[in-house]
Amino acid sequence: MGEEVIISNKQVILKHYVSGYPKESDMELKNSTIKLNVPEGSNVVILKNLYLSCDPYMRGRMKKTEGSYIDSFTPGSPITGFGVAKVLESGDSNFQKGDLVWGMTGWEEYSIVTPTQNNLFKINDKDVPLSYYTGILGMPRMTAYGETVFVSAASRAVGQLVGQFAKMLGCYVVGSAGSKEKVDLLKSKFEFDEAFNYKEEHDLDAALKRYFPDGIDIYFENVGGKMLDAVLLNMKLHGRIVACGMISQYNLEQTEGVHNLFYLISKRIRMEGFIIFDYFHLYSKYLEMIIPKIKAGNVVYVEDVVEGLENAPTALVGLFSGHNIGKQVVMVSSE
Amino acid sequence: MGEEVIISNKQVILKHYVSGYPKESDMELKNSTIKLNVPEGSNVVILKNLYLSCDPYMRGRMKKTEGSYIDSFTPGSPITGFGVAKVLESGDSNFQKGDLVWGMTGWEEYSIVTPTQNNLFKINDKDVPLSYYTGILGMPRMTAYGETVFVSAASRAVGQLVGQFAKMLGCYVVGSAGSKEKVDLLKSKFEFDEAFNYKEEHDLDAALKRYFPDGIDIYFENVGGKMLDAVLLNMKLHGRIVACGMISQYNLEQTEGVHNLFYLISKRIRMEGFIIFDYFHLYSKYLEMIIPKIKAGNVVYVEDVVEGLENAPTALVGLFSGHNIGKQVVMVSSE
Repeated sequence: MGEEVIISNKQVILKHYVSGYPKESDMELKNSTIKLNVPEGSNVVILKNLYLSCDPYMRGRMKKTEGSYIDSFTPGSPITGFGVAKVLESGDSNFQKGDLVWGMTGWEEYSIVTPTQNNLFKINDKDVPLSYYTGILGMPRMTAYGETVFVSAASRAVGQLVGQFAKMLGCYVVGSAGSKEKVDLLKSKFEFDEAFNYKEEHDLDAALKRYFPDGIDIYFENVGGKMLDAVLLNMKLHGRIVACGMISQYNLEQTEGVHNLFYLISKRIRMEGFIIFDYFHLYSKYLEMIIPKIKAGNVVYVEDVVEGLENAPTALVGLFSGHNIGKQVVMVSSE
Repeated sequence: MGEEVIISNKQVILKHYVSGYPKESDMELKNSTIKLNVPEGSNVVILKNLYLSCDPYMRGRMKKTEGSYIDSFTPGSPITGFGVAKVLESGDSNFQKGDLVWGMTGWEEYSIVTPTQNNLFKINDKDVPLSYYTGILGMPRMTAYGETVFVSAASRAVGQLVGQFAKMLGCYVVGSAGSKEKVDLLKSKFEFDEAFNYKEEHDLDAALKRYFPDGIDIYFENVGGKMLDAVLLNMKLHGRIVACGMISQYNLEQTEGVHNLFYLISKRIRMEGFIIFDYFHLYSKYLEMIIPKIKAGNVVYVEDVVEGLENAPTALVGLFSGHNIGKQVVMVSSE
């Protein structure tokens, strides 16, 4: 495999398990080195990381969890997550030097990954921004492929697409978000029918009644807590709740209790959680559907791209105060 | 329609809306009178009540509710609920004098009911105890027609049948109940695989792990609150929660919060509420299935029958302290 190449590799390390809101100081930048060769007989792939995805689910990996759908991060090691990368060397015949890929990688300049069926995907269509493969063309966005009506955290990575897909399906779509700027974005750019700033609503129940005088058929749940309680009061009979995330709860040591669950019974509501991993088999169909729409401008996708691995901790922390507008991405390198 | 007949009619009146646990003093016995004639041109049915059903859902009707699946009781009027009765006079051609019926009636000796499609059913098979039509052959029990694994409130009207049906389907079935006597009943009479007294478990999570080391596939939810939180910790991936009732919450002014809902997402759990009213179209099929099993002794059904309308308030109140063993019924008259 040629000459041994060792180069410097900047990494973002999780220092320790986190309680409460994560802070930049929970992470540190470390200058490490990496050998850019595939050992004889190994099937690893050596990646140069280009874009990294910041996602709320990563909060769960910052604490010690058991039996979760995904492992905790390892304190002292780099954070891992979805990203876009270029293949530098490959011991796996499915990937060649020069390929662009997206999948599970490290928060570092270079990563060594052992490909499995579900952790690394070759990028074939390069005619769209590469960063999109951390978002609309990558992991979290396949989750939006379905119908909805009320969407919380609606300007974020998932919410913005849920709303647009629901509109394509002919739904009346209302979104909530945490600032005037985001609410304006929902209405002007993503073409939601209505949107409101939940921080300015003292009574979420009253806000929902204003926009849904006849009730909500479908709630796409991204936030949990008080919003879920208010939504339960406003669901229609036989309504459906798609449980995708509960970001309002991730940083609380003791989660808020949800008090209105009896409405699941009295209104015969179905509430079901899902994780994108269960739907990877639909990914190629999803790409067939979405790429032409992106190219034709029928789907709008807003990213908040921060440049430089050194800014990755701030970007990740900012997710939980709603600092980002649209999908939060870190550009490690543009090529 | 012959001579006018006016006779005395003892009634159980709800005095006022109830907060907290209902007390006998929230109800009062009243001596009223009733005219036992169907007015000309009216389609009402005049019933002599035989058995009345005490059900936890009735607690919800003791408070002022809006948009619930069933109306509140009217303070100053008799309580209403499911019961078994004999037809004394009928203005509806579907019912004849002398027919036995079950359906929605009043907590009184005689009631006047306007039949609709879903409130009054003729009893054809009289070869089983008539009181069964308040339970296993009546309203709440159709809900049990399905598979389950963990059943809370398992010795009660619904739970005892859920467990037996789940056993017929070849499930491993564990139930919880609130006394040693009930736990013994679950194991000896209803043939649950295991049962435990939740009041003696300081750690419900640990108790569930003891009986379900590999997790719970199906939870039949009758109690809510802390039990639901413990169950969420122990559900398997893609588990299902059938939400039938939440009796632990009905008497609380502020319900307990449920804290572990994020497991709906991480374990992709489906939780769905249902109300028996949606399944009335299956009732005749259910009877075909269940009556032969009762006659053959393949299904056991335990009732707690109190005699006398004057004891109805105590029977109803006792539901919420778990006083009853099996389905609580009030016998107003044996014929």
